[in-house]
Amino acid sequence: MAVASHKPIPLLKDELDIVIPTIRNLDFLEMWRPFFEPYHLIIVQDGDPSKVIKVPEGFDYELYNRNDINRILGPKASCISFKDSACRCFGYMVSKKKYIYTIDDDCFVAKDPSGHDINALEQHIKNLLSASTPHFFNTLYDPYREGADFVRGYPFSLREGVPTAVSHGLWLNIPDYDAPTQLVKPRERNTRYVDAVLTIPKGTLFPMCGMNLAFDRELIGPAMYFGLMGDGQPIGRYDDMWAGWCVKVITDHLGFGVKTGLPYIWHSKASNPFVNLKKEYKGIFWQEEIIPFFQSATLSKDSTTVQKCYIELSKQVKEKLGPIDPYFTKLADAMVTWIEAWDELNTPSEEKSSKPANGVAAK
Amino acid sequence: MAVASHKPIPLLKDELDIVIPTIRNLDFLEMWRPFFEPYHLIIVQDGDPSKVIKVPEGFDYELYNRNDINRILGPKASCISFKDSACRCFGYMVSKKKYIYTIDDDCFVAKDPSGHDINALEQHIKNLLSASTPHFFNTLYDPYREGADFVRGYPFSLREGVPTAVSHGLWLNIPDYDAPTQLVKPRERNTRYVDAVLTIPKGTLFPMCGMNLAFDRELIGPAMYFGLMGDGQPIGRYDDMWAGWCVKVITDHLGFGVKTGLPYIWHSKASNPFVNLKKEYKGIFWQEEIIPFFQSATLSKDSTTVQKCYIELSKQVKEKLGPIDPYFTKLADAMVTWIEAWDELNTPSEEKSSKPANGVAAK
Repeated sequence: MAVASHKPIPLLKDELDIVIPTIRNLDFLEMWRPFFEPYHLIIVQDGDPSKVIKVPEGFDYELYNRNDINRILGPKASCISFKDSACRCFGYMVSKKKYIYTIDDDCFVAKDPSGHDINALEQHIKNLLSASTPHFFNTLYDPYREGADFVRGYPFSLREGVPTAVSHGLWLNIPDYDAPTQLVKPRERNTRYVDAVLTIPKGTLFPMCGMNLAFDRELIGPAMYFGLMGDGQPIGRYDDMWAGWCVKVITDHLGFGVKTGLPYIWHSKASNPFVNLKKEYKGIFWQEEIIPFFQSATLSKDSTTVQKCYIELSKQVKEKLGPIDPYFTKLADAMVTWIEAWDELNTPSEEKSSKPANGVAAK
Repeated sequence: MAVASHKPIPLLKDELDIVIPTIRNLDFLEMWRPFFEPYHLIIVQDGDPSKVIKVPEGFDYELYNRNDINRILGPKASCISFKDSACRCFGYMVSKKKYIYTIDDDCFVAKDPSGHDINALEQHIKNLLSASTPHFFNTLYDPYREGADFVRGYPFSLREGVPTAVSHGLWLNIPDYDAPTQLVKPRERNTRYVDAVLTIPKGTLFPMCGMNLAFDRELIGPAMYFGLMGDGQPIGRYDDMWAGWCVKVITDHLGFGVKTGLPYIWHSKASNPFVNLKKEYKGIFWQEEIIPFFQSATLSKDSTTVQKCYIELSKQVKEKLGPIDPYFTKLADAMVTWIEAWDELNTPSEEKSSKPANGVAAK
């Protein structure tokens, strides 16, 4: 078991929730104890709700199983996936914090090239608290990191940057490959530690992985919907991809940034490529049409909030992707349900006095 | 003096020229001997043509001074800058090879984190010979590097990539900062070795530095014009930036890629920030208008060759940037002269038989 050489200072301790989707006992938290213990955890239990999930002692957490989700959301619970890690987005919805970090339960603490444990959460927070630079590429990567800056030829008017909405972290050991690549390269491991954080330029889409991801709920939360996946759906393993496409289009529209790169976590276990292929294969076809759709999607000037953007996007999904498969019509409807449920649980502050609270009972 | 631990295999030995602009003896080549000696060098001597530049023994080179440039290009020599490293682009024009590597004479061999000498040229060649991925961002960086691939969610239809036209390398030690940043951070050194190569996405501009740069002359050569800088011009130190903006717009239009990242060279000597400020200050204003111009520049379908693209761009420069300062009208004209001179020295192969050769006498 790795032990941190010095007690880390927990940044934003009261402003960040850690969301973990799981179907098993959370022994993996032992390794994260030095980093996660000061924070509040939101555990979203997938699968059989009668199963008891053990959480190591000392962690502060709330746990929701399917019965809780159904009770809290009522008929709107239909927008939350079952038997798929997409269920994690329920945790984003019930959080009351400004920031979310979400991590998979097969991810462990990685080491940097000098052999020190990487405090992934701390790096995500640094990424989120420093600006992004989506309008022009800086060849020395994140100009706000210590020892770096904007290079010659970078316009001074763009050096203030824009608020960062998303911090996308990477994985050492098992790379996040699709089933065909897993099948072809079963032994490939990611051993390359790339010491960089960079902004994904405006207008460029990326494959967002939900394994090691942080974001600013206030800036982008309502767009972090992980879609309809798993039980009863024709597709799985595209939950984070779906969220990533929507999030990128909306952050570009609203003028926020998305960073990728550091921090790394240690991804311990490759999922079964045969099972994955079954979940993914429709997505492998569909993404060839979905991605051009998102690449050309534009939002109207009237869409000035994430919610409005998301509703507008849902209409475009229904219209443009609906013809591919009835699934997308269902998904577009679920996107609307998601926003309704989000707004129900997250009463905007200016309405708080006039509208009765309809939130989650503390567990 | 660093010595390579094993004799490197010189890739593309007969297909690549190394272009070096200089005003002094080329002692810096001693350190590069294990890597550069098998290649042909094109030395462009700036400043006083009567000065004799010493080149260490054993290197195969041709050298051009101002008198040579004037003799070869006649009145068209006006498009080649004097007393500015922009003169290097004359070397691109007289080369007969498919690939160019250009490097400044204050750049030395850097070491990777394991202490080995970096064969910068070899890495550039690897970058140029593998495809680029400008249409979608791959979070594990260059998918064609050993140990890497496309991640989950990357469309399969885009995995073939596009031909790489440019490989932009970076610098350890002295970073490529503008004068204001040099003045504010005189002691900042780049010590961060980022082990990555990545494609700059389509539609995104970047500050291209000419210090450590390789490109495919056949794909993009005629757009690698370093503009009018230095002697008699109101601006300096924007030669490579100008080329970079034009190149990026044209590669995006023609469907080629631009990579940045590895390899690093060791940049030994910061130029004088006071002198630099004098050269740069108009550029610092102007780039605030130039960059939006290039960001919104589009080329017509009829522009199917680099030359046609460049001529079309020169017209847009004259029309849209001319009003900023008469300099841009002059620059737009020089862009046309450059293409005329390029075509004179580089007779397209299908015309070779019908048109008399009008090239450079071997020196």
